[in-house]
Amino acid sequence: MPTVDDVAQAAGVSRQTVSNVLNSPAIVRETTRERVERAIADLGYRPHASARRLRTRRSSTIGIRLDPLRDGISGAVLDRFVHKLAEQADARDLRVMIFTADGPDDELAHIRRLHDGSDVDAFVLIGTVHGDVRQQWLIEHRVPFVSFGRPWGGDLADPRHRWVDVDGRAGVRDAVNRLRASGAERVAWIGWPSPSGTGDERRAGWAEACGLDGATQAALSRSTEDGVEQGAALARELLSGATAPDAIVCASDSLALGALMAATAAGRPDLPIVGFDNTPVAGAVGLSSVDQPLDEVVAAALELLFGESGGDVRPNPDSNEEPTNRLLVPRLVERRSNHLALGGTTGA
Amino acid sequence: MPTVDDVAQAAGVSRQTVSNVLNSPAIVRETTRERVERAIADLGYRPHASARRLRTRRSSTIGIRLDPLRDGISGAVLDRFVHKLAEQADARDLRVMIFTADGPDDELAHIRRLHDGSDVDAFVLIGTVHGDVRQQWLIEHRVPFVSFGRPWGGDLADPRHRWVDVDGRAGVRDAVNRLRASGAERVAWIGWPSPSGTGDERRAGWAEACGLDGATQAALSRSTEDGVEQGAALARELLSGATAPDAIVCASDSLALGALMAATAAGRPDLPIVGFDNTPVAGAVGLSSVDQPLDEVVAAALELLFGESGGDVRPNPDSNEEPTNRLLVPRLVERRSNHLALGGTTGA
Repeated sequence: MPTVDDVAQAAGVSRQTVSNVLNSPAIVRETTRERVERAIADLGYRPHASARRLRTRRSSTIGIRLDPLRDGISGAVLDRFVHKLAEQADARDLRVMIFTADGPDDELAHIRRLHDGSDVDAFVLIGTVHGDVRQQWLIEHRVPFVSFGRPWGGDLADPRHRWVDVDGRAGVRDAVNRLRASGAERVAWIGWPSPSGTGDERRAGWAEACGLDGATQAALSRSTEDGVEQGAALARELLSGATAPDAIVCASDSLALGALMAATAAGRPDLPIVGFDNTPVAGAVGLSSVDQPLDEVVAAALELLFGESGGDVRPNPDSNEEPTNRLLVPRLVERRSNHLALGGTTGA
Repeated sequence: MPTVDDVAQAAGVSRQTVSNVLNSPAIVRETTRERVERAIADLGYRPHASARRLRTRRSSTIGIRLDPLRDGISGAVLDRFVHKLAEQADARDLRVMIFTADGPDDELAHIRRLHDGSDVDAFVLIGTVHGDVRQQWLIEHRVPFVSFGRPWGGDLADPRHRWVDVDGRAGVRDAVNRLRASGAERVAWIGWPSPSGTGDERRAGWAEACGLDGATQAALSRSTEDGVEQGAALARELLSGATAPDAIVCASDSLALGALMAATAAGRPDLPIVGFDNTPVAGAVGLSSVDQPLDEVVAAALELLFGESGGDVRPNPDSNEEPTNRLLVPRLVERRSNHLALGGTTGA
């Protein structure tokens, strides 16, 4: 990509002169101006991004808030999402600006500042909920955005709220079916407290496929805040109960890692356990896990914002004439060795 | 932060009129212009960021390349660094723009584009090496930057190359001393192949403190590409050797997790093992680890770029009159329970 310096050198003028030709051409001698314009054309120079922004009021930048650092195991999904967003945005010659915020209201303040300064063209939101202040403001001000995560509690088909999500219910259902096909008869569930759009969906996939009556379901399911220790504690509880499970499916890899440690310590290293997110830790310890197709999520999000190959943001749609959301299918990654027990490695 | 809309509303004019007052005041009727200027002053409105950028040719944005996704355990350090950078930049009203690249040359191409478009004010580089093309270009073009990581192979005191790093040698030395004070006599090392600025420094800390002669050092040290499986394989090898270690220190948490799994499987769950980076996985499995003080690293990096509280980038220094680098001391986080063996949790 040629720079202002390249143009200046090619035209035999100063950088300031090139700038004048671009921004205040009337003050430049005609012969000089023509020489600079020829150099610009020859080199394929693109004007100063900020100047273009002012003229068109559109930058080529996506804004996304980084989730607060959590235990780094489950949180790794969003970091991987941001990495892939940066990679795919780059292929479309888009920029990605990140910021942090203390909550939805603080995030909205950032969104307003970035939008007003024409710093950001479109926003990617993570985890919206019904009545979400960010979503409401963005829709009201016709600022393009897409969510990763369904806007639970609202009209999922509202075309003004573009979203991409992964079908966690189907992913967990598939995992449970696989376990039952391998002979498990009492598949337990460790997940998150209700209400949680994402958590309730995943649990519903377990409830749908486990083949257990209501009382047994109650005996074999637990809910807790996410975390390795929490998963270990609840797995220990389940394994020492009257109705012990012969397999455990968890809402996250953090919970599943805890369950795996507890099962190993309880002398049940071969107890099948399935996590969710297919984090690097799952690969490292030999844990089966449901994989979120993040490359497809990012591709779908960018398509909803920018179209198949364009670089200009699509205006927010008013009708249902074009798809405004995508639900993607996750895939179970099965691993057969509990590396915690073997301390060995046979690949993932 | 007031917006153009707020000013327009307060002054009772259109958004376009406010824009004209800011950019083409001559075309606005004087009474209208005064009314708008009064509203701007009353509200404390700051002009359009891109307009300010053009006038001052300085945006308030830091650029940083995201490291390619690795196994996500050791790589988590850089993700945490980026999070903290975004948090602290926010407190200084700075923006952070991220991008990905295929290697130093691709990264330099990005740097040039972002700099030329006045998209980015200053860059943070990760892991520079002597002769690094990015560093050379940035110095040559007087573009402000700071590295996280010493510029190995070059003049570490070169004031044109601002850097912040963590004293890994001291961190490992301290860990080895702690192990020996607890009774270990054959502390082994698993690290990365030479040459590696960071890896060689960490190993030097082990060599300095282990109290072993050359032959024993050779018998009790291994090097490998980073990874959990690699760590497990080498730990197994060490533990089954003639001179078995009674403690193992590793260059990363990935290696240490592998070593911990191998030791547990070999019936040595209490073998002291120390990793590096204090990643969330270390906390989850009860692994002792050397913690990098990332908050201090980020604070030091921003201070080197922007001064103690300023928001204007300092020009690259030419002399040694002010400090241009910082070496920070890491801290060993000791954990006493191997959760892999107990499957239990007693906190970190």
